[in-house]
Amino acid sequence: MISRVVDGIGELVTNDPTVGDGSSLGVLHGAAVVVESGRIVWVGPSSAAPSADGRIDVGGRTVVPGFVDSHAHLVFAGDRADEFAARMAGERYDGGGISATVVATRAADDDTLRALLAARIVELRRQGTTTVEIKSGYGLSVADEARLLRLAAEVTDETTFLGAHVVPSGVDRSEYLELVCGPMLAACAPSARWIDVFCEPASPHAFDEDEARAVLLAGRDAGLGLRVHGNQLAAGPGVRLAVELGAASVDHCTYLAAADIDALAGGDTVATLLPGVEFSTRSPYPDARALLRAGVTVALATDCNPGTSYTSSMPFIVALAVREMGMTPAEALWAATAGGARALRRDDAGVLRPGARADLAVLDAPSHVHLAYRPGVPLASTLGV
Amino acid sequence: MISRVVDGIGELVTNDPTVGDGSSLGVLHGAAVVVESGRIVWVGPSSAAPSADGRIDVGGRTVVPGFVDSHAHLVFAGDRADEFAARMAGERYDGGGISATVVATRAADDDTLRALLAARIVELRRQGTTTVEIKSGYGLSVADEARLLRLAAEVTDETTFLGAHVVPSGVDRSEYLELVCGPMLAACAPSARWIDVFCEPASPHAFDEDEARAVLLAGRDAGLGLRVHGNQLAAGPGVRLAVELGAASVDHCTYLAAADIDALAGGDTVATLLPGVEFSTRSPYPDARALLRAGVTVALATDCNPGTSYTSSMPFIVALAVREMGMTPAEALWAATAGGARALRRDDAGVLRPGARADLAVLDAPSHVHLAYRPGVPLASTLGV
Repeated sequence: MISRVVDGIGELVTNDPTVGDGSSLGVLHGAAVVVESGRIVWVGPSSAAPSADGRIDVGGRTVVPGFVDSHAHLVFAGDRADEFAARMAGERYDGGGISATVVATRAADDDTLRALLAARIVELRRQGTTTVEIKSGYGLSVADEARLLRLAAEVTDETTFLGAHVVPSGVDRSEYLELVCGPMLAACAPSARWIDVFCEPASPHAFDEDEARAVLLAGRDAGLGLRVHGNQLAAGPGVRLAVELGAASVDHCTYLAAADIDALAGGDTVATLLPGVEFSTRSPYPDARALLRAGVTVALATDCNPGTSYTSSMPFIVALAVREMGMTPAEALWAATAGGARALRRDDAGVLRPGARADLAVLDAPSHVHLAYRPGVPLASTLGV
Repeated sequence: MISRVVDGIGELVTNDPTVGDGSSLGVLHGAAVVVESGRIVWVGPSSAAPSADGRIDVGGRTVVPGFVDSHAHLVFAGDRADEFAARMAGERYDGGGISATVVATRAADDDTLRALLAARIVELRRQGTTTVEIKSGYGLSVADEARLLRLAAEVTDETTFLGAHVVPSGVDRSEYLELVCGPMLAACAPSARWIDVFCEPASPHAFDEDEARAVLLAGRDAGLGLRVHGNQLAAGPGVRLAVELGAASVDHCTYLAAADIDALAGGDTVATLLPGVEFSTRSPYPDARALLRAGVTVALATDCNPGTSYTSSMPFIVALAVREMGMTPAEALWAATAGGARALRRDDAGVLRPGARADLAVLDAPSHVHLAYRPGVPLASTLGV
């Protein structure tokens, strides 16, 4: 087994509060990390680093845990640039455009989708993301949903069955729900870790509370963990349902009532904020500060998808979180790494400590603050070790 | 002389309204460009491309004129990440932080500044910028301003003397103005094409209308073209002064009165908007639509500087212009290319037609709309031809 020391780290963010400056980020200056067989075996000051078979000097740059993008829709064909331009010219988003992507995705063969997915994985890794969750949801038939999940499982362990994305056009609502909870779930569960539902009574395309509960309970019975798209377009039952059922995460949280924040604070469900959506749909941003004040665990993710947030850039999401949601640079980085790992109930990612995966991102900057201070600049990349 | 054909262009934006779809962007699909000795010699449909000595196939990607970043402060040392973090936590910006950069820049030797500048040029070229204006303004002494301009002139023709950035701490205001308009101007003019002044009566550090007029008239007498920082922090005289004196551009335009827009519409001065500043200072964005409605020529630039907008990313600026200022993707791209060229009174940049410089940027996307549709994603790069 070959060991390597990553040395010359100007600022090292570990997300391990027991080391370094004692903050949540666990920051060390003048640090080194030793990795072996894809795992971290040592973290500490450069001067005390044990010898290793190889050495990578990052020249005083910043090293942080690779970003954990816990919400992405990466298996699709086509794009919706025209819908985006129309929305920027004033049109409203209600989830209806998803059907355009369903048509394009169903029409694409496996190799086409595999190539598109591979290019997207390359793109996000180039920007420092080392863990990504991938949802189905553009198939909406038994065969197509199962196909998308098989393709997703080729590139990530974090696969999510989202047959309950929208009711496909021309299909009866209750018949579709039966399909999702029955044959579609059975076909998809072998390739999925999670089940998710777009719980949004305000959208005619999405699902109400009872429908969402039925989907989630069926998924739980099939051995899947739970995730919820909730409270994106209006206040509603999504957040409370997610907490009630012990979902790992409820995502969006754009419109929150005080009772939603109380529920989150009293439960184990992470609130995953997706400010790329608010940027790309010109919606108000979620109230991150209220969540943090209440002690809720907050994650940040891209929601990368061709309709409402076609960004794969976690650094951009961090910059938005600071500018638009009042998160500090440290809170935003934690949420984009450790927060994402919590949202996926992973303890081997989003943290740099012995035993964790050797998922390192390097920033061409003297400090993690530059992720927000230098918006749009491609500072982050994945460090191959 | 070696000629090369750039072929396989899925979408070509020329900014030449006499070709292609007849829009301001002059868009061609399935196009090719032939270059020779750093100039464009032919533009047209791929099927009609003349033969050339070499061929670059961009695989269906989009090609646009390289970005023209007409407002940047790239010669400096140090950073102000702490000031940024404090501002994000609620502190107000009034221009006072500039002095911190002046101290750090004066303390840096030529080779240090040269290396920092070279790294910044690499960074912006990697993001598709092919022309950049660089201002002095962090020296604020005769020797240091002249030094910064000499260094800037090593990397760009578009150099701007900004001795009148702020009054340095501890220096008498009227004595400093005499210095700027006399010995400092004389020492700087040989390395400068332009003179600029921070006309902002609302800031105790910047210059009022009479002071700004004196600076600009002295610069004009020394043979320099005129530029103005105006109306950034409050409504004020900057825009009207710029138009009155026939400045090439007035930059910021964050706070505009109706009379300012009328003045711009009646003159030849470009309104250069710098939305990276509003993003990084949490200020309201300029009213781009009012300017466009009035027929004003609008440019977009980064204002890359360590205080108020430490981004070098023109794609990010385009995305902000669309999201935050209601510009269409086409208007924003035009402003970031042809608009910047107008702001620098250049007819050989910001346009792809025979005779113009072979400044090409390639976008890893099927259309220029993706610059705004995919915010934060590093899609753009400079095409070396």
